[in-house]
Amino acid sequence: MTNHALTNLALTTDTIGSGGGAAGSEPLADSNDDRERLARAGLSRVVEPGDLAALKAFDGMSALEIWDRLQRKSRGLERWSTRLAEVDPQGDLERAAAAGARFVIPGDEEWPDAVDVLADAGQLTRRAGAPFGLWVRGRANLRAALKQSASIVGARACSSYGDHVAAELSAGLADTGVTVVSGGAFGIDAAAHRGALAASGLTIAVLACGVDVSYPKSNSALLSRIAEDGLVVAELPPGCSPTKLRFLARNRLIAAATQGTVVIEAAIRSGALNTAGWAEQCGRAVLAVPGPITSRMSAGSHLLVRERNALLATSVADIVEAISPFGAHLTEPPRAPQTLADTLAPDLQRTLDAVPVHHPAPATRIAVTAGLDLPTTQQSLESLAAHALITQTPTGWRLPPPTPLA
Amino acid sequence: MTNHALTNLALTTDTIGSGGGAAGSEPLADSNDDRERLARAGLSRVVEPGDLAALKAFDGMSALEIWDRLQRKSRGLERWSTRLAEVDPQGDLERAAAAGARFVIPGDEEWPDAVDVLADAGQLTRRAGAPFGLWVRGRANLRAALKQSASIVGARACSSYGDHVAAELSAGLADTGVTVVSGGAFGIDAAAHRGALAASGLTIAVLACGVDVSYPKSNSALLSRIAEDGLVVAELPPGCSPTKLRFLARNRLIAAATQGTVVIEAAIRSGALNTAGWAEQCGRAVLAVPGPITSRMSAGSHLLVRERNALLATSVADIVEAISPFGAHLTEPPRAPQTLADTLAPDLQRTLDAVPVHHPAPATRIAVTAGLDLPTTQQSLESLAAHALITQTPTGWRLPPPTPLA
Repeated sequence: MTNHALTNLALTTDTIGSGGGAAGSEPLADSNDDRERLARAGLSRVVEPGDLAALKAFDGMSALEIWDRLQRKSRGLERWSTRLAEVDPQGDLERAAAAGARFVIPGDEEWPDAVDVLADAGQLTRRAGAPFGLWVRGRANLRAALKQSASIVGARACSSYGDHVAAELSAGLADTGVTVVSGGAFGIDAAAHRGALAASGLTIAVLACGVDVSYPKSNSALLSRIAEDGLVVAELPPGCSPTKLRFLARNRLIAAATQGTVVIEAAIRSGALNTAGWAEQCGRAVLAVPGPITSRMSAGSHLLVRERNALLATSVADIVEAISPFGAHLTEPPRAPQTLADTLAPDLQRTLDAVPVHHPAPATRIAVTAGLDLPTTQQSLESLAAHALITQTPTGWRLPPPTPLA
Repeated sequence: MTNHALTNLALTTDTIGSGGGAAGSEPLADSNDDRERLARAGLSRVVEPGDLAALKAFDGMSALEIWDRLQRKSRGLERWSTRLAEVDPQGDLERAAAAGARFVIPGDEEWPDAVDVLADAGQLTRRAGAPFGLWVRGRANLRAALKQSASIVGARACSSYGDHVAAELSAGLADTGVTVVSGGAFGIDAAAHRGALAASGLTIAVLACGVDVSYPKSNSALLSRIAEDGLVVAELPPGCSPTKLRFLARNRLIAAATQGTVVIEAAIRSGALNTAGWAEQCGRAVLAVPGPITSRMSAGSHLLVRERNALLATSVADIVEAISPFGAHLTEPPRAPQTLADTLAPDLQRTLDAVPVHHPAPATRIAVTAGLDLPTTQQSLESLAAHALITQTPTGWRLPPPTPLA
């Protein structure tokens, strides 16, 4: 039974690895033995994501060691034994395989090293640990998909502005080969996923429940499409429901897994700000899209820029610059086209300003108006005429008549 | 004739100084003799504002010295002699007095020292010099009015969002006693002046033409009202028309005279960005109001934040903080009200998440759902019940029924 299921799973991932368009072309190398995978699958059900007490109690132990000690009901670990009787990692792996999902663990070719930053808890102010593994639904290679990625997060109850901007920026990111990661929720999340899908790009939904659970229910068609064309990922095993703490723990994954987090519309009390906080702690880029100051929906984004040094994201290029290695993708700041008149030296400009529109004036008059001496004025007039900015008439200088519209 | 006019002017300013509500109550001290004022009035007509060549040629000379040398047609100053024949400083002072204006010069009690920063040209990358004097129309004391002031600048062709925000922020600034300074132009400028006037606050229009010239024409009613309730100020003597270079020179005055410049809606090619540049060079605060990234009108504001370290201005408080002495007016960042459930320790939150909404569950069941040991769960349930977050029933624990609406 055990072997059968794992074989099944291996077959599934193998097929996935070689069949997916966006996935790496090599079959997935698997350096982990079955015991390790089973232990981690079990732990992913027993230990709540981001459990601080667990992180402390298990400090320095391998996954196998933790799992063995829990089975042996070791002293000090009683706290995590309550669920043990109901845990069936082998069953979870089978259930996942049946739902078209695999369980990716550290050491697997597909494991996204980026999330390991979460294990380095000493560096973070809020310790929460790396996941024991990631349940993954979809054909793409998780590690490859995350290599160039940005998370787009924001309000569930977003405005039409937020919805529009999330879809546009995500489509633009997808166009430049950046994977769009979000949480599969209503509002900004859904718009971001949809934008990436519309541009035929890769998108990943990281859920706070099992990858086989459709939450929110009305996003189930969207989640299916993401699983079809992109990836649905969760730290929690199949069947799990979301809880408040699971949403917060999920946010740390989104932040850690991507090179940058972009907040689009977040009220002051928004999970997106929590994700941004994690991105900050993980050393990832934090960006916020500005909006009208009259909109409460943009207050959180503006707060990030004002109080937490988030970068202002106004375009796809801004985001690509921020998530790329230093200097790799510098944004060209927008510039207006310069006209000839913009580049005039001050004396020329002053002379030009003093030339009448209609009724020609002599150089002596123009010199007085411009406040320049006559020789300077004469020279400037010649120069302006040479550039066709003014015309000379028998009675003096004037601006050229406007070009008639064709 | 000379003395008569000056006496007239002195009487006017005296009346103004003691009569104006917002003005200082002492009569204006005048440490300048007539010769100095006449020389500066003359220079304000002969030398274009911000004339770099003049700054160089006159370096180290007093106003009287410059004026004398120009009269004597000294070598090297020929450039400025063209207008000399037509200049009548005494006439200008009379003309100003007739229009209800006075000519304020350094040393006058009313002189705003802030603009002297422009004389320290060595510190600036674009030298342009301090004004020889300021032509001032209105009852308020210029120096006092600028003591707590911010300039609000932006696009002439602003959107209704920009118009609304400019009026609201200006009204708010006026309410807190901050004088709103702008350029008297269409769009953001006009909205800013109107907002301050609507809040019965002080507002100052700094013009690129004479204080008696209504430019733009259709703003003449607004300019009259500003002169009535606030101040209209210009570096150029009465009767002068605006030119492109005069607009740019005017911008440096707006930036230097106030403690901070707030840009509201500026396209990439906007005079407001020029003003912001001057504010930067003068060591003044530079703020930009964000807007939709889909609006070209906000592109300049966002550019200032991204490329030139402008602060994001989202409220009156943000502006007041930025223009106040360090630490004097710290903005309280917006915070959402915290509910009791927000402050729960993780174990309590996990237990609460595991308590059913309708059908009571025993502690043993809740412990499994929460993934906590039974003693911890029991303790958490008691604590949650003590805060009325859950209720105990004969068959177990559940959330309290919702309070019926009155």
